[in-house]
Amino acid sequence: MRIGQGFDAHRFASHDAGKPLWLACLRWEGDGIEGDSDGDVAAHALIDALLSAAGLGDIGTLFGVGSQSDGAGKHGAEMLRTTVDYLNERGMKPVSASVVVIANRPKIGKHREEAERALSEAIGCEVSMTATTTDGMGFTGSGEGVAAIADALVEPVDPSTRQAV
Amino acid sequence: MRIGQGFDAHRFASHDAGKPLWLACLRWEGDGIEGDSDGDVAAHALIDALLSAAGLGDIGTLFGVGSQSDGAGKHGAEMLRTTVDYLNERGMKPVSASVVVIANRPKIGKHREEAERALSEAIGCEVSMTATTTDGMGFTGSGEGVAAIADALVEPVDPSTRQAV
Amino acid sequence: MRIGQGFDAHRFASHDAGKPLWLACLRWEGDGIEGDSDGDVAAHALIDALLSAAGLGDIGTLFGVGSQSDGAGKHGAEMLRTTVDYLNERGMKPVSASVVVIANRPKIGKHREEAERALSEAIGCEVSMTATTTDGMGFTGSGEGVAAIADALVEPVDPSTRQAV
Ligand SMILES: [Zn+2]
Ligand SMILES: [Zn+2]
Ligand SMILES: [Zn+2]
Repeated sequence: MRIGQGFDAHRFASHDAGKPLWLACLRWEGDGIEGDSDGDVAAHALIDALLSAAGLGDIGTLFGVGSQSDGAGKHGAEMLRTTVDYLNERGMKPVSASVVVIANRPKIGKHREEAERALSEAIGCEVSMTATTTDGMGFTGSGEGVAAIADALVEPVDPSTRQAV
Repeated sequence: MRIGQGFDAHRFASHDAGKPLWLACLRWEGDGIEGDSDGDVAAHALIDALLSAAGLGDIGTLFGVGSQSDGAGKHGAEMLRTTVDYLNERGMKPVSASVVVIANRPKIGKHREEAERALSEAIGCEVSMTATTTDGMGFTGSGEGVAAIADALVEPVDPSTRQAV
Repeated sequence: MRIGQGFDAHRFASHDAGKPLWLACLRWEGDGIEGDSDGDVAAHALIDALLSAAGLGDIGTLFGVGSQSDGAGKHGAEMLRTTVDYLNERGMKPVSASVVVIANRPKIGKHREEAERALSEAIGCEVSMTATTTDGMGFTGSGEGVAAIADALVEPVDPSTRQAV
């Protein structure tokens, strides 16, 4: 059993940018984030936690960085599935994962279970998500951006059968 | 074995508010935090880590939010015990948990082990606590507030015997 | 199996201070951090995660605090080895560990695997490292300082043979 830690943060885009808001593989109401990716901090922090647990690099080494990267324009669910395939091919499998979203918005509330289902489906094991604010403090409290912290457990599998070894 | 991540942050109240300071189920010298709860970030981050590991929601879904919630006015130890009962009834049990407190105050120092005992007693497994500052940076460094990051492992139990299955 | 969480943050020193930059047991280009230690947040966060997982205190209780402490002037690799010896003597052994570095600099990029090798060699088990920025937000985004979040798994060993029990 191996453990991994992940973290990600993104800045909200201005309303004029007209970008949709993606988080935990779902689209939410409100303005999205800046940059080349869809800015899904929950997915990105989980990808780093999974890759780190497996000893297989990080989101930058797997997908590249910047507007010409493999990750540019890709959604969190697709990137998570690519990550899990990458682990499986190298004899590792996610066992359990969890992510905290730190943000003023979107309001997760009644959509929390839907978000967990979307993440779990992408990863192929149970993923839990919690959400919290920082009482108006720091860059998440001012509404400047959103952050996520994730952890994950992975275990070795037989790459051909994908069963635990 | 399942893993969970938790995070919490609260803003210190002004001295005029006359609120006591609670952290890790203990009362400390100095002014407390704003809001409806006792502001025990160590307990709250651990509750989210435990609930997330168990796939049973978060502190908001279990205790509600705001001044009319079940959590309002409740201390961390009571909320942690309620959380563990909730896990046990659903066939899960804490195995190990750990929390980092990020703050200028209170000075944990010689009370660290006392804090760990209080948390461990509330949860019913060994809980470790470390403490650090941010060298004067960010909202914890300015003394504006306090934050905590927690992780936890849980495992399935037989709900009737509470033994590992 | 026990889990531990670690966190550390340090402020960059001015260029005039002439301090070298240490991170993940390696020396990097650019100005170092303020304070008495070498400011290796990756090593320090991992030390706290390992000690917390083992229920053996934190970096302050093991190395002391301030310019007269055992940690003053010591490099991360030496402190990590001391930490693992301390665990081993008390019947615990690192199983897996992971750390996220949150900073504008140094650019980890092509040195990530070298950093992982240095950390893994110091700890005696596989350690993964990922790196991310905060899109210009907060104290890591402004370049004021650097932070790291770590998690670790430890297990009991026979102190004489250092084999799992
Ligand atoms: Zn991202
Ligand atoms: Zn709270
Ligand atoms: Zn440090």
